[in-house]
Amino acid sequence: MHGNVIAQVSTPPGKGGVAVIRMSGEGSLDIAKKVFLPFSQKEIDSYPPRTQIYGYILYNEEKVDDGMLTLFPAPHSYTGEETVEISCHGGVLITRTVLEALFTAGARSAEAGEFTRRAFINGKLSLSEAEAIGTLLEAKSHEQIRLSASPARARLTEVTNSIKNELIGLMSSIYARIDYPDEDLGEFTDDEAVEKLLSVREALTRLIDTYRTGHAINEGISATVCGKPNVGKSTLYNLLVGEDAAIVTDVAGTTRDVLERTVALGRVTLKLTDTAGVHSGEGIDKVEQIGIGRSRDKIRSSELILAVFDLSREMDEYDLELINEIREADGYKVCVLNKLDLVEKKDPPFDIARLPKDVFGDVITISADKDDQGSLKVLIDLVNRLFTDEKITCGQDAILSSARQHAAVLRARDFINTAIDAYRIGLPSDAASSDIEMAIGAICELDGRAVSESVVNDIFSKFCVGK
Amino acid sequence: MHGNVIAQVSTPPGKGGVAVIRMSGEGSLDIAKKVFLPFSQKEIDSYPPRTQIYGYILYNEEKVDDGMLTLFPAPHSYTGEETVEISCHGGVLITRTVLEALFTAGARSAEAGEFTRRAFINGKLSLSEAEAIGTLLEAKSHEQIRLSASPARARLTEVTNSIKNELIGLMSSIYARIDYPDEDLGEFTDDEAVEKLLSVREALTRLIDTYRTGHAINEGISATVCGKPNVGKSTLYNLLVGEDAAIVTDVAGTTRDVLERTVALGRVTLKLTDTAGVHSGEGIDKVEQIGIGRSRDKIRSSELILAVFDLSREMDEYDLELINEIREADGYKVCVLNKLDLVEKKDPPFDIARLPKDVFGDVITISADKDDQGSLKVLIDLVNRLFTDEKITCGQDAILSSARQHAAVLRARDFINTAIDAYRIGLPSDAASSDIEMAIGAICELDGRAVSESVVNDIFSKFCVGK
Repeated sequence: MHGNVIAQVSTPPGKGGVAVIRMSGEGSLDIAKKVFLPFSQKEIDSYPPRTQIYGYILYNEEKVDDGMLTLFPAPHSYTGEETVEISCHGGVLITRTVLEALFTAGARSAEAGEFTRRAFINGKLSLSEAEAIGTLLEAKSHEQIRLSASPARARLTEVTNSIKNELIGLMSSIYARIDYPDEDLGEFTDDEAVEKLLSVREALTRLIDTYRTGHAINEGISATVCGKPNVGKSTLYNLLVGEDAAIVTDVAGTTRDVLERTVALGRVTLKLTDTAGVHSGEGIDKVEQIGIGRSRDKIRSSELILAVFDLSREMDEYDLELINEIREADGYKVCVLNKLDLVEKKDPPFDIARLPKDVFGDVITISADKDDQGSLKVLIDLVNRLFTDEKITCGQDAILSSARQHAAVLRARDFINTAIDAYRIGLPSDAASSDIEMAIGAICELDGRAVSESVVNDIFSKFCVGK
Repeated sequence: MHGNVIAQVSTPPGKGGVAVIRMSGEGSLDIAKKVFLPFSQKEIDSYPPRTQIYGYILYNEEKVDDGMLTLFPAPHSYTGEETVEISCHGGVLITRTVLEALFTAGARSAEAGEFTRRAFINGKLSLSEAEAIGTLLEAKSHEQIRLSASPARARLTEVTNSIKNELIGLMSSIYARIDYPDEDLGEFTDDEAVEKLLSVREALTRLIDTYRTGHAINEGISATVCGKPNVGKSTLYNLLVGEDAAIVTDVAGTTRDVLERTVALGRVTLKLTDTAGVHSGEGIDKVEQIGIGRSRDKIRSSELILAVFDLSREMDEYDLELINEIREADGYKVCVLNKLDLVEKKDPPFDIARLPKDVFGDVITISADKDDQGSLKVLIDLVNRLFTDEKITCGQDAILSSARQHAAVLRARDFINTAIDAYRIGLPSDAASSDIEMAIGAICELDGRAVSESVVNDIFSKFCVGK
């Protein structure tokens, strides 16, 4: 009967003061009437929409709890459908009981993400926005929140819509000229088309350039700390992890001794591989100990390699071995000269001049075990500079923040390039138009709106002259 | 400025789709205006009360999320104070960020239970109701939910209020006769006073009798399974625990091998001590193995002792040792004859006739490892009969469900008894009146309304003739 009504607990699992159960789909109100009895004895839909109503929650007509109910008539709800929210006491069993009451009354259990999927299908949010909400729920840094909060989501949608509309406008002009070659449709030359395409390309490039920052904030930079024993790997690791220990998470790796920790460092999210603690025991082969053993693969796949050296000791074969080991890795290599506090700054035992010039992108000097924030600031400035663009502000700028989005915009730019080339070698404008159509498709994909030809036609029908 | 405004996350900790943050106290609306910007650009208090408003959530004027806000003007809120509820996305960090936004805007963190404490102080709920809500949040059985849900809470309040009003009416009559001995205040004899007191005592006794059931459902019956090895202790334990495994919880005991599990069995909550698995290894001293070792204290303090015997083997010294061991324990002793499926019913190897007549309150026969529900039904019927009153229905009857409530009502009845005695031995009615006053005090304590003399006077001022 109400096969389309889904229900599920929206609040986190476990015990709390309050739990919220959400129900969505045509028929939600009918089900709500079976499971909820306002204390006022009035009908639920006699209240103004979106009013929290106090009453009894019923399970097969038995009063199992008292709570609040809110009716969100379509389309003014999260999903765009008729939606009902019920707040009950937040015990584990009572929450489950209220949910079961909804199931008994005709709702079915919502699948993971089904509310948001319905919101997407009903045009309440784009795929990029849905992705951003996913990020927001998982956010481990305030910069991630800024990147995913509502204003940032809106800004990206705005910019991609503007690019899309620009291209659609161009297409409609081209189509009009193809369909009505004899009519005077104004001065619209190939040069003007190319000019518009160049402007769109510039906008796409600007967007593509934001992905470096979006990737660093959202997806995170994979990083490894390596070095021979006792250079201060663990201390550096702890310094990085400690910046905001409360929001750090452990992700068990494939082996017991490769752990990944997600750390907010400045604006950047570091996915830090803990190889620091792996080889710290005495009596282990020293070559193993410089961290090139099991963690070799991790070093090779890291975007950032922090190679740690001890300023208070002379450079030795193990340091050189490490340098050779990381030389071929693709990641950005930073030489971290540690234990600055133990040496004369001008003449440390470690011979800096012997460091090869062609391996490290940066050389920084720190005292990882000192309490003052100087060393941490050096590291924050480093990752901010390396992986983000200071000119880009989350919330104000449209920022690409996932590989999927990045790939879609790259694809759009490729099609625009092909279209420009087509014009430049003097092909007729219907050659370019098919590329532009593909570019629009790629942009639409960004929003998750797969663009079949009929959809494109539908869009264009509004723009094409006289059609 | 808003030192009285408290805020905290009301939903369970962890990640979910939605989190609810509650803020209460005079000034909540002012703070809400600083942290919430309706999309409509309208003022929060321009909406009808209790309307869910969609908008931006601000942290120092930065938009950190979008969510819903509801204003509950005093006194129509949970606490009775001006209250604001904000729903935001249910990520861990985003929830914390929104909460911090409220703190920055002037709210302070609510202490554990502070919302409910305020509700109590503002007369929104009695102490018994607050206790029941606590039970509801922890509820592990549907019967606990019925015992604690709103109708049950209301029923207890109703009954105790009725008793209290009865006594207050009696007091006002007595006082009036003391204060105005010469006026004609109707035919109100000492006999009539005694009659009223007897009727109140009957009501109190009815209430006191419900505690056996309330205790069994809410606080739970401590129970131990014991027996020599291989009689099926673990099987019985698993049968009991398995009844509704999803709602079973583990409570780590003081020692690694004494675990307590909370199990819903019929209407009864069993706090089941797991001694079954403790001594199951081979080669352990057999005397230890009958479960009297470390678990001896547990047996002694249990309200229910399930002593298990194996029908398929002859009674031996270990069985007799167990019987002697539990003989002195206070708990209700049930002889559980197990492995019925392995024996001829009429002539099992275990000689039932040798069981002492003075130890066991009940003897039941089961097959704990059989899948059919027969044995479980025997156990359910047993605990329902032993610990609950079938005539009492949760939700319809007023039920005492905590030792505190029980003690208060017992105290009230003691005072009523003394008052009755005072009348019967012919003391002047002001002797009885002080006992009645104390009884009213005890009943008020049940609701958590501590009764100072001034409060009593205040109550009586409404009743006393001409005063």
